[in-house]
Amino acid sequence: MRLRGNKRVKEWMERENRLIVRDHKQNKGKWREFFGNDKPIFAELGMGKGGFISEMSLLHPEANFIGIDMYDLLIGRAAELAFRLWREQRGGEPDNLALMRMNIEYLEEAFADGEIERIYLNFSDPWPKARHARRRLTHPRFLQKYMRILNERGEIHFKTDSPSLFEFSLNAIAETGLKMRNISLDLHKNGNIPGNVMTEYEKKFVQQGKNIFRLEIVKQPPISKTP
Amino acid sequence: MRLRGNKRVKEWMERENRLIVRDHKQNKGKWREFFGNDKPIFAELGMGKGGFISEMSLLHPEANFIGIDMYDLLIGRAAELAFRLWREQRGGEPDNLALMRMNIEYLEEAFADGEIERIYLNFSDPWPKARHARRRLTHPRFLQKYMRILNERGEIHFKTDSPSLFEFSLNAIAETGLKMRNISLDLHKNGNIPGNVMTEYEKKFVQQGKNIFRLEIVKQPPISKTP
Repeated sequence: MRLRGNKRVKEWMERENRLIVRDHKQNKGKWREFFGNDKPIFAELGMGKGGFISEMSLLHPEANFIGIDMYDLLIGRAAELAFRLWREQRGGEPDNLALMRMNIEYLEEAFADGEIERIYLNFSDPWPKARHARRRLTHPRFLQKYMRILNERGEIHFKTDSPSLFEFSLNAIAETGLKMRNISLDLHKNGNIPGNVMTEYEKKFVQQGKNIFRLEIVKQPPISKTP
Repeated sequence: MRLRGNKRVKEWMERENRLIVRDHKQNKGKWREFFGNDKPIFAELGMGKGGFISEMSLLHPEANFIGIDMYDLLIGRAAELAFRLWREQRGGEPDNLALMRMNIEYLEEAFADGEIERIYLNFSDPWPKARHARRRLTHPRFLQKYMRILNERGEIHFKTDSPSLFEFSLNAIAETGLKMRNISLDLHKNGNIPGNVMTEYEKKFVQQGKNIFRLEIVKQPPISKTP
């Protein structure tokens, strides 16, 4: 994505201490205190411009949301959008949302074991070259990180338009021995499903007639029915 | 498939006691005796005209093969084909192949626990209507039957051109808590893979540019790496 230098965006970064978490290590083990309540915490890894996480925060006051991405400018854009949507739709400021710039590599520096209840992976970079497989956010090494920071009700909700990333992910999840659920090879076959908040990418891909793939991972260990 | 009445085919049924197993219960627990050796037994459920199972029996003398389907005429056709291919390629008669007419519903009447080492499901009927879901050969109720007759090294190899059957199967396998492996959303992406024997359907679909989906199920209980 092309990121234009944008003074206004940089101003958000400097001004918004409540919404924007500057040091990814600052709240480790203390996210409940940060949000000031015991609601479950849902994190989106790779939020892009932040449309999904903002919309989720508005739709689900019963949870807290953390949008994560690697670039300051995306954090700034997402902050701007969140403030605008909250003002328009709720007449106030986001109170269950945080935005944090960090590299997912260091996830465990940001979250204690069991601190997160749900992870969203939306249209993650497919890293199509085989030599970059380790960078894919559904690589077993990432799945293992996610399992550590998820609590016992933990779930991962994964959507992609990339058949090759979806295929890779199915194999990575199976290899890691994790339980899957609600696997879909064409999420919008019968129109959008209830509760599915569409990302910017998703809206575009659906208009283009591209398939959206989706699955959930549930943290409880699989129950083997083999004798 | 249109099955023309065919006297010659009926003659095979009556004549070939070695190749064709008429009573599906007759060898339960005694398949090793039937084949006269200890080679692993691989069964194809729904062999159609039998091209796959014949070709496999020729390629893999280290195993025994059983082709199963529900109609006499298919058994007859498959027998005819098996004799022809063996005569042409080996100058003899099939010695590691059996053909059996039965309804997969009664699989446990034909095989003792652990008697089979591999099951092939090739282009099984997708039964697209929801009310027929229980008839799909990857329904959990069938998967549980398969797990019983498979031995500890047991595997199921499943191929289909139907995205909806593949999606259904992924969910059924995950729900049943079985371990998957080698999941492919486009088996012929880079040409045919080594060792993949193509069925009649598969050749046709690949020519039409249709995706072939494939996965393996391995019997050993999944190893959970969740903490």
